[in-house]
Amino acid sequence: MTQIRKLTADRPVELAPGARMFPLFGEAGMLNVVDVDPGTEIPLHSHPHEQLGIVLAGEITMTFGGEQRLLGPDDAYQIPGGVEHGGRAGPAGCRVLDVFVPVREDYRELAGA
Amino acid sequence: MTQIRKLTADRPVELAPGARMFPLFGEAGMLNVVDVDPGTEIPLHSHPHEQLGIVLAGEITMTFGGEQRLLGPDDAYQIPGGVEHGGRAGPAGCRVLDVFVPVREDYRELAGA
Repeated sequence: MTQIRKLTADRPVELAPGARMFPLFGEAGMLNVVDVDPGTEIPLHSHPHEQLGIVLAGEITMTFGGEQRLLGPDDAYQIPGGVEHGGRAGPAGCRVLDVFVPVREDYRELAGA
Repeated sequence: MTQIRKLTADRPVELAPGARMFPLFGEAGMLNVVDVDPGTEIPLHSHPHEQLGIVLAGEITMTFGGEQRLLGPDDAYQIPGGVEHGGRAGPAGCRVLDVFVPVREDYRELAGA
């Protein structure tokens, strides 16, 4: 069944200290708007899911497979499953939109969805 | 291999008259930023791919499986494969971000990617 809602009107789900998410779970994939506070570090990690994303506001220095890049609005990325990545939000924080295929079941559990 | 780039700096791909897209093709899924000119109609259509999306700017009246909804910034949607949908951009046009799982191979061909 189709889902429609103002995603950022949901109660945010704490993803980690300084990072809050607004997920939309589909069947094959999911969307996730993530707000990251200024200077917050997202430690290097990897998962089998493919991740695609785009910076909606602010800046984040991301590390992908050892390479560091400063990303700002409209910068997009595709991270194959298994590739280690992480980031540190810029001085004004950032909002990114992430996509995961398949659905992150750990996020579904975290969100109680 | 990881892809990173400013998506809207790409040459836009004409999706239909009045609609231009900036796609990022992954392996399992894809992102697509779509700019729609004021009043442009996207005719009702369906596809087997799951579609998730969010309005980034402007407004669009979308029809999902017969139901009409006016969507604005941060309004998100999930459309299961096979569900008929379409839309009409508002008076200022709109920018939406769409996700398709699996990849729309017709879009990859259109983009010459």
